[in-house]
Formats: sequence, C-alpha cells, structure tokens
Amino acid sequence: MSLTGRSLVSIDDLSNGEIEALFSVADKMSDSLSNQSGVCQGKIMASLFFEPSTRTRLSFEAAMLRLGGRIITAVEVGATSLAKGESLADMARVVGSYADIIVIRHPWEGAARVVADYAGIPVINAGDGGHEHPTQALCDLYTIKKERRTIEGLKIALFGDLRYGRAVHSLTYALARFGAIILFPPSPGLEMPEHVLRKLTTEYKGKLIRLEARDQEVKKGLFPLDAMYVTPSSSHQLAMLPDISIQIELKKTGIDTLYVMRLQKERHAPAEEGQELKKNYPVVDKKLLKGKEFKGTIVMHPLPRVDELAYELDADPRSMYFKQAARGVPIRMALIALLLGTKEITISKEAASFVQKVDYPIYDRDSGVRCLNSNCVSNQETETRYIKPEFKIVSLEPLTLGCLYCEREVHPQYIASSEWHQGMLETKKYHSADSHWIRKIKPENLIIFDSESEAGAHGFKPSSYITAHRRGR
Amino acid sequence: MSLTGRSLVSIDDLSNGEIEALFSVADKMSDSLSNQSGVCQGKIMASLFFEPSTRTRLSFEAAMLRLGGRIITAVEVGATSLAKGESLADMARVVGSYADIIVIRHPWEGAARVVADYAGIPVINAGDGGHEHPTQALCDLYTIKKERRTIEGLKIALFGDLRYGRAVHSLTYALARFGAIILFPPSPGLEMPEHVLRKLTTEYKGKLIRLEARDQEVKKGLFPLDAMYVTPSSSHQLAMLPDISIQIELKKTGIDTLYVMRLQKERHAPAEEGQELKKNYPVVDKKLLKGKEFKGTIVMHPLPRVDELAYELDADPRSMYFKQAARGVPIRMALIALLLGTKEITISKEAASFVQKVDYPIYDRDSGVRCLNSNCVSNQETETRYIKPEFKIVSLEPLTLGCLYCEREVHPQYIASSEWHQGMLETKKYHSADSHWIRKIKPENLIIFDSESEAGAHGFKPSSYITAHRRGR
Amino acid sequence: MSLTGRSLVSIDDLSNGEIEALFSVADKMSDSLSNQSGVCQGKIMASLFFEPSTRTRLSFEAAMLRLGGRIITAVEVGATSLAKGESLADMARVVGSYADIIVIRHPWEGAARVVADYAGIPVINAGDGGHEHPTQALCDLYTIKKERRTIEGLKIALFGDLRYGRAVHSLTYALARFGAIILFPPSPGLEMPEHVLRKLTTEYKGKLIRLEARDQEVKKGLFPLDAMYVTPSSSHQLAMLPDISIQIELKKTGIDTLYVMRLQKERHAPAEEGQELKKNYPVVDKKLLKGKEFKGTIVMHPLPRVDELAYELDADPRSMYFKQAARGVPIRMALIALLLGTKEITISKEAASFVQKVDYPIYDRDSGVRCLNSNCVSNQETETRYIKPEFKIVSLEPLTLGCLYCEREVHPQYIASSEWHQGMLETKKYHSADSHWIRKIKPENLIIFDSESEAGAHGFKPSSYITAHRRGR
Repeated sequence: MSLTGRSLVSIDDLSNGEIEALFSVADKMSDSLSNQSGVCQGKIMASLFFEPSTRTRLSFEAAMLRLGGRIITAVEVGATSLAKGESLADMARVVGSYADIIVIRHPWEGAARVVADYAGIPVINAGDGGHEHPTQALCDLYTIKKERRTIEGLKIALFGDLRYGRAVHSLTYALARFGAIILFPPSPGLEMPEHVLRKLTTEYKGKLIRLEARDQEVKKGLFPLDAMYVTPSSSHQLAMLPDISIQIELKKTGIDTLYVMRLQKERHAPAEEGQELKKNYPVVDKKLLKGKEFKGTIVMHPLPRVDELAYELDADPRSMYFKQAARGVPIRMALIALLLGTKEITISKEAASFVQKVDYPIYDRDSGVRCLNSNCVSNQETETRYIKPEFKIVSLEPLTLGCLYCEREVHPQYIASSEWHQGMLETKKYHSADSHWIRKIKPENLIIFDSESEAGAHGFKPSSYITAHRRGR
Repeated sequence: MSLTGRSLVSIDDLSNGEIEALFSVADKMSDSLSNQSGVCQGKIMASLFFEPSTRTRLSFEAAMLRLGGRIITAVEVGATSLAKGESLADMARVVGSYADIIVIRHPWEGAARVVADYAGIPVINAGDGGHEHPTQALCDLYTIKKERRTIEGLKIALFGDLRYGRAVHSLTYALARFGAIILFPPSPGLEMPEHVLRKLTTEYKGKLIRLEARDQEVKKGLFPLDAMYVTPSSSHQLAMLPDISIQIELKKTGIDTLYVMRLQKERHAPAEEGQELKKNYPVVDKKLLKGKEFKGTIVMHPLPRVDELAYELDADPRSMYFKQAARGVPIRMALIALLLGTKEITISKEAASFVQKVDYPIYDRDSGVRCLNSNCVSNQETETRYIKPEFKIVSLEPLTLGCLYCEREVHPQYIASSEWHQGMLETKKYHSADSHWIRKIKPENLIIFDSESEAGAHGFKPSSYITAHRRGR
Repeated sequence: MSLTGRSLVSIDDLSNGEIEALFSVADKMSDSLSNQSGVCQGKIMASLFFEPSTRTRLSFEAAMLRLGGRIITAVEVGATSLAKGESLADMARVVGSYADIIVIRHPWEGAARVVADYAGIPVINAGDGGHEHPTQALCDLYTIKKERRTIEGLKIALFGDLRYGRAVHSLTYALARFGAIILFPPSPGLEMPEHVLRKLTTEYKGKLIRLEARDQEVKKGLFPLDAMYVTPSSSHQLAMLPDISIQIELKKTGIDTLYVMRLQKERHAPAEEGQELKKNYPVVDKKLLKGKEFKGTIVMHPLPRVDELAYELDADPRSMYFKQAARGVPIRMALIALLLGTKEITISKEAASFVQKVDYPIYDRDSGVRCLNSNCVSNQETETRYIKPEFKIVSLEPLTLGCLYCEREVHPQYIASSEWHQGMLETKKYHSADSHWIRKIKPENLIIFDSESEAGAHGFKPSSYITAHRRGR
C-alpha cells in the first residue's frame, strides 16, 4: 500500500497502519531536520490559503523547504481569481498543472474535497471551514504517542469549542480509531456536531455514554463530564461503571491528556453569540490543574490561544503545546514526502484497526435534495455550475443523508420509488420517509424529496396515508 | 540577435523570428520540465503584482522555480510603499538593485513601460491595466501553433470583451503579424479599442473588412460577424468575398479557433454598466458548438472563466483551455531564461514577417497636450513628478497622437510652427489641425495644442481662418 | 566575541567593533554577490511583516536568497493569528520552532524585543513602530563610510521628520557612537524625541548645543540649525564656536552629508496634523543644494520619498540614495550570515569606542507604574497577559524611568521605600519624587507610584510634607 499520488482530505483517508508508518518517517526526519534537503529537490508545493493563517501555512512551507522543495503561495484572501468568479475546480486544474502538490485552506466546508477531485496531483486539506483539519490531528496524535508511547486505552479530555473546532473533529475520529477513551466535559452551545458523534457510534462502532450527574460532580469536586466515548473492543473498567463512579474513578486513575481549544469566534455567525459564549468559556489554569486527576496529565492546545489557557502554565512540565506546534514540521515533512512518493513506506500487513471503513450507498439523483449547510462548497454560487448535490445514505430509519462534501446530515421527509415510472404512472406516489416503504423500496430505486412541493414538481402524488394524515391535521 | 538583457513590455518587442525561437526553447523545456533546475541557479526574480492575480503570478513563479531560480514577491495591493506615495520609477530602481529580473502587473496602463525604463534589469509585463499582456498572448499563440502547426491563414474568432481584455490586444497584434485571419463577432459596448484596430491597418498594413449583413446572418443560422481582418499578403479567398458570402464560406470551411474571454467586470467604471453588459454577454456552450463551422474548432480561453464558457464543454476534445493554461509554465520558463541570458538563441536570418515595425516621429514638446486616458501612468499624481507626456505622431491627416505609454489616441485640434519664434513674433499664429498647414510645417517644428486657451497661454494668436470661422459660428 | 545566535533589536546591540567587522564582511560579499549561495544553504528565514513594506522586506529576502537560504513569509497585516488574539510571545515561540532566524517588522514599539525574548533563535528588528530600525541605520552608516572612508568628525545634517522616523533614531545613536557631528535643522512639530536626545548626552556623553540665531541665519543665507551634537572627545573647532559662527564655519568648510527623510504621515494620529505638517515640510532640490556648504555634500534618503527630495537631483553626482538602497542587500547578507553563525568574525580587541554602554538599574515592581506610550507593546491587550511593565531608572533627579520596551520616558511623582514594610507599618509613607528622599532610599528598596491614588491603593499614606503641600494649595 503506497501513499504516492494520494490526497489527504479527511483523517479517514489514512488507515491506522499508514498513520503509524508516517509517524516512523517523521521520527527519522526529526532526528536530522537539516539533512533532508535532497528529499523533494525539484518539486513545487502550491500553498493556497483562502483563510487567514500564519502558523499552519508557515509550518507547511517550512516543511517543504526543509525537504529541499520549493513553494508558490497564494494568500490574498478574497482578492484572487476567485474574486473574479472563478470556481474551485478551475483553480485546482490550473494550479495542478503548475505544481506537484497542493496544500489548501478554505472557509467552505468540503472545498478541499473538490480541489482533490480536480487537481490531478496530491492535495492536502489544511482546514476546510468547520469541517476537518487532518494534519493538525496528525500532529496532535503524534505528540500524544511520543509522550505516552500508545494511544489505546488513554483517557483524553477535549476541552472547549467542539462545535467549530475543525481540528478536534479530525482528532476525535483518529482517537476513536486508535482506541482512546474520549472524555467530553460540558460545553454548552459548543457541543460536538451530531454527524461527528454519529460517526463515532456507527462507523467506528464504539459506545457513547451520556452522563447526567452534573450537580453531584461539582459538589464532590469532580471533573464534570457530559459524555464519554469508548471503543467497541475496550475492556477498560471505566466502560463498565455507572455515571458518578466514572468521575470518581477518573480522579483516582487520572486523565492522560487535556486537549484545550480556543473559541472559534470567527465562525460564529452573530458576533453577539460569540461574545456571550466568550464570557462563559472555560479556562485552564494552575488552579484547575491542581485537581488530583491532572497530576500526570499532558496539556495540549492546537494554538493560537486566547484566554482559555493561562500563560502561567507555560513553564509547567505538563504543558506540551509548544512541543506540539514544533512537531508540525516533521509530521508535515513526512506527509509531503510520502504523498509525492519521494519517500516510500511498506505496510506489509495492516495493523489490527478498531474500525472498518463503511461504504454507504450514494444518493445523487436530481430530486431537489440539497445540503442545508450554507457554508458547504456544494451551496456556493460559483460551484453549483458543476457540482450537483451528492449524499451518503448513512441511515434508513430514520432516513439520514450525509453530504458527500461537508458530511452535515439532512433528514428528508418523503420518498418514492423509481420503479413506478415504468409505465405505471398512476401509481407514481410519494410516501413518508418514516413509513414502512423505506424498507420496501430497493436502494437503487430510492427517490428522496425534502418537501411535498418538490415531490409534486417531479410529478409525484401523495400516498393515501399522507393525504389522510393531512386531513387529520 | 540576442534577447539577453531585453524587456518584454509589448508583444511587439519581439520579432516573429524571436517568437518562433522562444517557442522552440519552450518545446525543449516542456519535454523535461523537471530537468531545468540548473538554468537559472543563483538568479532572483521579483514578482510584483499590484493587481489581484493568482494564475499569472503562480505561473511565473512556478516557471522561475522550475529553472532553479528564486523569487521575491510583493502582492500587497495598495498597502505597499506606493501607498506611501512612492513612484514607479523609484520602486523600479530599488527593486532593480535587489533582483535579476522583474515581473510586474499593475492597474495603470503603461506602468510596465516605466518600470522597464528605470529598473536597469529585464522587465516582463504581466498585464498593465487594459493595455497589454504579452506573455498571455505568447501562451495563446503557442497553443494554436502546437494544435494547428501554423498560424498563417488560420481563421480565428475573438469572442467576448475586446474592449478591456488586455490579453486579446496583445494576441491580436501577434495574430496579425503571423498572418492569421481574425474574425470579430459582434460585441456591442465591448468593441476593440480604436488604437488597436488602427495599428492593424496602419502598422501591420492589413485590411479590416466591416460586415453589415447581421439580420440575414442570424436568419440563415450563420455565425454573426462584425468585421474581419486579413493580412496584406493574404491570398485567402475569404478576403475576396462579399459580406454574407464570407459567413457562408466560413460555415463550409470552418473556424479554426474560437478564443473566448470573460467580461472584464473590474475595469468597467460604473458597476451598473458591467451589470447590463453581463446580462447580454454571449455564452459558448454545446449548443453553439453544434454549428457546422465549429466542427474542427479548438476552443480557447485565457481563464478565469465565469459564465461565458459552459462547464459541459470541459470534456469536449475541442476544449484547449486547460492545456493552454498549463503551457504558461514552459513558455514563461523559456522567456525568463532568454531575457536573463541563461539560454541563448541564434536567429540567423529573420523569417519573413508580415509586418515591419513603423518608427513614428515622437512629439514631446511641453505644449500642454496630455493623454486623455485617466488610467494612463502618465496621468498619475505620483508619476507626473518625473514623466512628461510623450506621443507618437501616428497620423497627420487627421492629426492623431498615440500616447507613448498607453497607446490611447488623442486628436488635438490646433497646430503652430516653432520656426515662427525665431524673431518673427507677430506671425506667431496657430492654425486648425485639419487645415493645409499640417503639411507645410516641418515635423521637427510642429507645435500642437489641444485647446485655443492652451495656444493662447503659450503666446500664440489665432490665424485669420480660425477667427473668421469663429465669427461664422 | 561572536555574533552567532545573537539578535539585533537596537543598533546598540552591536559594538562599534562589531559594526566595523560586519562592514568588512559586507565588502567581501558585494564583490561577488552571486557567489555566496553556499553560505546559508539549508537555513530558513521567517520574514514577518505586520506593517506594509516592500523595500525592506524584499531587501531582506533577496539577501537571504543570495546566501542560498530559504524564506517563509507572512505579510497579511491584521489578518493573521494575531487577529485571532494571539500574543507576540506565542507567535515567536512557534515560528522559532519552524525557522532558523526571524526578521520582524511590527507597528508596536518594543515588539521586536518581545519576539527576541521568546523566539529562541536570532531575531532582526526590521522596524518596530516609531522606535528603531537598526538595519537601515547600518546601510546608512555603511554608505557614509564607503563614500567618505570615515565617520569620525563628519558633519551630518538630519533633515525632515525626526519625530517618527525610526530609522533616524537608530542612525543618530550610531553616528554619535562613531564620533560624527550631528546637525539638526529646524523641524517644527517633528523634533527628535526627548529620549533620543537624552541618550545622546547621558549614555554617549556628548554635548548638545542649542542654537538660537534663527533670524540672523536666514538673513545671511546660512543653513538654519536648531541644534548640534558633538561627541565628548571631539576636538573639532565647531564645538568651540558661538552660535552664528557655527553656521558661517559650516558655509566655509561644508556639510558632509545631508540625510533627508519623508514625513511619516502614517504615524501621525490625527490625519489633519499630517496635512498641516506636509504643507510646511522642507524640500531638498537643486536650488537648496546651490548653497556653498553643499558643494561636496552627499545626499542620502532611506526611501521611499514623496515630495521632500526633487527628482531633478537623481542625476546629480551628489545623490547617493539609490546606491544606499542597493547596499541594503550586502549589509543584510553579512548580518544574517553572522547571526546564523555561517560566517564568523574575530574582533581581537574592541576598537576604541566613544561610548560605553550604561547599565541602568531596573525597576520592575508591581506598583502600578505604566509606560504612557499607547503604541508600546507593553500596553497591548494581547501582551499584558504575560508582559509586566519594566523600566530602566535613567535618572534620579528628576526621577526618570525609560520603558524597557519602547524607551519612552515617564516621570512618576511619588516614591516610597520597601524597607518600611518590615513590621513598621505606621511609617509606610510615600514622598514626592523630587524631595530629598530620592537620595535616601536605596535603589533596591525604591517603590515608585505615578499617582497618589495608586500609592494609597498599595497601602501607603502621604508624608507630612505632601499633606502640608496639599493644604497650601
């Protein structure tokens, strides 16, 4: 299995074995950072940042330069060809003919997927809206691995804005796949998106345990938890315990990693909302870390930080965030070299993985179902010229579609069958998506509508049940 | 004839033979793009983009990097030293002492000429306002050549915004010089500027045939044409035909190239004008290309596109625009290497050219005549400190001056002779520019005024004819 | 004494001997600019420009590229991580783990000091607000040295905006240290800041002679002067003369260098103020340079210029400003190579210097004294999380503190002693800073307050003198 020529859009584009192999390349590279300048000689990386960034961009560029490669950069946010109305696909094809690899950051969710589809060269997602940021997750994972030797069975608390923190979405998937126990402290208004949690329990098939003993916890000086994720194979005793006992156990055995995130203010649509959330945002400081459960914890943060992580911790030996940032360079060096094929790894046999990638059926009929995420690449004026909505059918009961670009879920309410077209026009009826018909229509015949008017526009008539139900209202 | 040390401001800075030689260097380079990294080792290119651009800039930078050279870039539009009030000349001199070659894009027409005048190193014009964009023209020409083996006698239709499309101005000159037949479909409000058309007929001495059978054409399903340009030497039968027959002939023999351009919205002063034009802008799509005349046509576009070129054509074998974009790299590699003198070409004998460069007399007296183009570099506050208006006298009857910087034409109305100064003050009179005096005054003595008040301010009195004419009004 | 690993924040970070050695490295490098590409192979420079700049940035980048090094650049003013609320310290630490050397320009005074404190790699100040710009001073000094062979005893006039011209602050220190005679023509509203003048007379221990014969001067066609600085060791006859005779002498013996600066419009808070100053701004042109004192003068300017230096001088052999700009490259090459340690110099014995660096006592008690410069890095919201105010006590009578970051001076009015804390609470009193107590309190016990309320808030009571004084009012 080679990484040559492949792209990294989602952390799930890499298997566990590939991630481990990448880490071993990074290990070797960090031993002699300045001796790698022959690895990518003559190669060009296009660094396309359509969202403000210094850290990530400079980290990628430093990585490529340390490998002896060269860089072309576009950072002019909103002042590029795209301002002239160009589509991502066109941009990708053209830049794909100039460079050997593309790194892209973009405010639209799913943008990196589109670029990877059209560029014809490897593409690395350096953050697409609030969706994913897989290389940050790789750096995070690598840091945990270096500090703790393994990830399996570790108790890792994710602290802060889980809703808009794209890096933490990618990280959550990776942690689950490597068998970590993920702790979710309460983050009101900033909870992990539904599609991320669903992926944990459906695709990675673990268990999400919701905890409800909040008041008790606080009284007893316990670290408050909303939920906990355990992998299917986990024999960890925590998974067996009732609610409050979990925290008591945590207090005793300790939290391995506290992963802190800033409030992603720039993604909160009404600025006032951001202001309100900012006021109540949790802070990690010396006082918090005095808790017994944090005695051996490593504190991580993807940076930049604002006020959620006190400067007084910088000298604390548990603080890993600057080391974590520094490791971005060797990790990205390894990744670039592997995708360009200037380094090769052999993964003889895939290490046992906790998860199996699920191949959901695709729904791409032109029946008017659209992704409801206004920030999704599939909903942008310049992109609708060539992108048509596409979904994974991630669940039938209830009917749930996941956007192929941004993964946000939609729950359309009406279904029909394409078989009815075949000369039986009078039976061309649509049904409620939660009726028994969902099990009767063959997947390849399924037609989905998100409104009755859309169904009507396609020439379908309501089933008698729907009509009756309507009368009943 | 060597290109070493020279600049490329206008496509006319290169002879036909030099262009052919450049193409052969590009051919060799595209055969082994990644083997050229020794060509410009140790050389620095300054990439100065004072107008938004991704494509062109990245293409130039990728070219220089593939040659093994290095890059310093300034893209901070409106936030540079020039925002501090610096002139182009100062900027050119300073950057000229840092780098070995400059690539400049600037919103002012004639800006690249000024930079080339002061930098002391080779300068490449990457687009100066609505004036020229010679390297795009080279890529276009190269693509036509590669796909059709020759340019002479080809029928090439220019489709879209001819008024503000700087690339198409440079391309038109080049096509004329290489003997193509240029077809101008109607583009109301977006016609080719007068000075471009004049250059075709005066400098390149071809024939511009205006067509007027519009209604008939449309009725007969013919491709509508406003005008057609044929080179002087053209023995092509099209040149002999009456109006409507031209289109019928085109239908039969086919159009070789359809060159499509987007509406240059950003150059339309009142945004509303742009909106109006956008509504009626022609679109090239599958339907249009079903016409018999397009059967063997190659479709080109300098990109970025907006709505004028349908995505459905991307998979059509006639579509060349992504290939055309990719060819920007080898063409620019060849150009940079030749101007830097790291590659040499020998053009033993100039291939027969359809045109001869005309050496117009220069008019640079301080008599108050100014270029009327508010976007011309000679009219900018920072530049008037050292630039004085200069013109080519491109025609005497009617008197026509072409600005040395932006080529836009002015038609001053009054003339006088400097000989009259010599002790004959009472005869210091000015005349109408369209009087017989225009032929009597020796060019070296000619004084030109664009208003009577200006003439008066310089101490001249109206001729009796002018006074009489005034009374007559 | 090696420069390896050190930073250049202020021109005073280099001794005279080190500057001379750097110049000799620059000499060798400018002899073969294109043969230096092995010097910094494999090294990465981070070029961080948080203020618009083309000239300085491109000059640094060209220097690093000529040395064979590589560059990562951030120029996105106000659109970076810092816009997300990140501190300079965090940014410095992270970029310090990506690159080998940092060049920083920032609008806050003292910003480069903070970056140097936290980056862990060499940092070069490329301009911090209106504070310093030491590499420009090095280029200036180098040019004077090349054109005049020495700096000692030269008469150098500084012409223009002395208030906000950060480059001229650094240059003034350097000129003083190398024994130049500095002439200050009048610049009403744009005078040299007090802390710069103080440094001249206290640290460099020279003499500042104020002149007051303005009207006479103008009448006699003499070059008007406000003040003149002479080094302590200067035996120059000018230093002995009475006011008006100085100018007469200057007329006779000539001014060696006229250093012209533009109005730093962008630093004038109310734009109107800038407008007013612009109207009266002095202009250097042919007419001015006709004066006998300018016969052998070299004219310098750090560029960009606006209207203060006429284009008609560009061809004048006395004009050195383009040469001066070009010399920025070899000077910066030498500096980068020395700080990175890829070039070494041996300064066997420090050449006799006119100045001795003064080690002022530091005041860093948390007693509420703050720098009053709103543009100082120590007063920025993001930085106060980890920076606490620190001062050099530059004078006791009157009590004067110089901010450790921006050097701006404050004159707090109240003092107390920490000894009083030791169990003698009833005597915990504060006194006027200009009372005799300033000499009685041991420096290590000194507590300073900038208001009575602040003193009160720290639990101190007014001395009887202060109370009496109050009653008297």
